[in-house]
Amino acid sequence: MTVKLLALYRKPQDVDAFLAHYNDVHMPLIAKVPGLQKAVVNRVDKTLMGDNPYFLIAELHFADQAAFDAGMASPENRAAGKDLMSFARDLVTLIAVGEQSA
Amino acid sequence: MTVKLLALYRKPQDVDAFLAHYNDVHMPLIAKVPGLQKAVVNRVDKTLMGDNPYFLIAELHFADQAAFDAGMASPENRAAGKDLMSFARDLVTLIAVGEQSA
Repeated sequence: MTVKLLALYRKPQDVDAFLAHYNDVHMPLIAKVPGLQKAVVNRVDKTLMGDNPYFLIAELHFADQAAFDAGMASPENRAAGKDLMSFARDLVTLIAVGEQSA
Repeated sequence: MTVKLLALYRKPQDVDAFLAHYNDVHMPLIAKVPGLQKAVVNRVDKTLMGDNPYFLIAELHFADQAAFDAGMASPENRAAGKDLMSFARDLVTLIAVGEQSA
């Protein structure tokens, strides 16, 4: 069962500077995390109902809980986390989710 | 480019009753929406950083913006939306997102 890390980002003051760092520095660090199957970055187009503070939602896919745990514990993820704190400390929510069978 | 509807659900008072309706009534209605490629239901396991009011996050995948728009405008989606209002009106945030190429 796929286990994912979801990173929900509230809108930064300087969107262009944020995205430049996110795409050019942060995602290349994320790409090195062992066991990462796929990274999907979603741009929020529209809020259809309810409150939504987010403008970007990223998904990091791992094959199962063991792969997720190993990835999270890796030095590569520690480096990515350190980078995350440097530019998005006050903007990000990180949650671990498991896909329910449909 | 995949366009998705994300439904983020805050935790209901009665989780079991919510999930019974969600799985047995709501998702079968969602499954009928034209153009829906895939529905993924994610249970939140753990909040690793930041505030997280959500316990369930569902993804409805469409091939592109045209398929998304047609699905949203369909009678089947109207029926699913009416059902959503009956059990999750105060719990749900709906957002449309587009996948950024990696």
